[in-house]
Amino acid sequence: MRLVLVDQGLELLDERACMELLRTGEVGRVAVTLGALPAIFPVNFRMVDDAIVFRTGPGTKLSAASDGAVVAFEVDDWDRADRSGWSVLAVGPAEVVRDADVAFKVVDAELEPFAGGERSTIVRIDPVILSGRRIVGDPES
Amino acid sequence: MRLVLVDQGLELLDERACMELLRTGEVGRVAVTLGALPAIFPVNFRMVDDAIVFRTGPGTKLSAASDGAVVAFEVDDWDRADRSGWSVLAVGPAEVVRDADVAFKVVDAELEPFAGGERSTIVRIDPVILSGRRIVGDPES
Repeated sequence: MRLVLVDQGLELLDERACMELLRTGEVGRVAVTLGALPAIFPVNFRMVDDAIVFRTGPGTKLSAASDGAVVAFEVDDWDRADRSGWSVLAVGPAEVVRDADVAFKVVDAELEPFAGGERSTIVRIDPVILSGRRIVGDPES
Repeated sequence: MRLVLVDQGLELLDERACMELLRTGEVGRVAVTLGALPAIFPVNFRMVDDAIVFRTGPGTKLSAASDGAVVAFEVDDWDRADRSGWSVLAVGPAEVVRDADVAFKVVDAELEPFAGGERSTIVRIDPVILSGRRIVGDPES
């Protein structure tokens, strides 16, 4: 038996479960502010040393907006057929990685963006706040 | 023949293509600010009268943060096997729908959230800025 917290038909996941799910993800979304406007960008990512890392192009809006900012990062996975799924939200400071050691680890992690183009800038997000939800199914709804 | 704009290995989609893709989506993500912190929430959505609509619980963080705010909304679809996919970003003002006519249209659109729980609040996002990208594949990468 285990204790499960349920909120609005959603099972709340603890930090450990969130980290495990983050490690299974491949595409996540980063929310940043461009000027005064919010924006969301999908990225291929990997977990390296418990941080979220992704590659982007040098001088892109995404690298400029995320460097030094607190950003939100989300990963989810859904099954349309049985209407089940989960999502994890990580919030924390982001920075462009300038440390060669981390860069090599990213290369070792085989983080290859789906898209081509030059994506030599590595951004790292340190997940300070982690929350996750899983749809447990509700026979009443 | 058609002219295709390509940015960093990504084909840029025009507004019409973005709207068409939005109509095929089922799960999207909303970026809002909670206090001073950014957050991303996945939602089941439908397009009603060219606006994005989703249901949430009354009094939730999501309905409070999105009512009256300019928010970002993102939908994407990826194929891990052939590393292809697309994403659409819509930015615009959001509001809690208090008009019964719109509420009835949402019911007609059979917008049923995957999760149970009470989700009687309808939020509408008017997409003022639309941008989209499709991975066209890059034999060089």
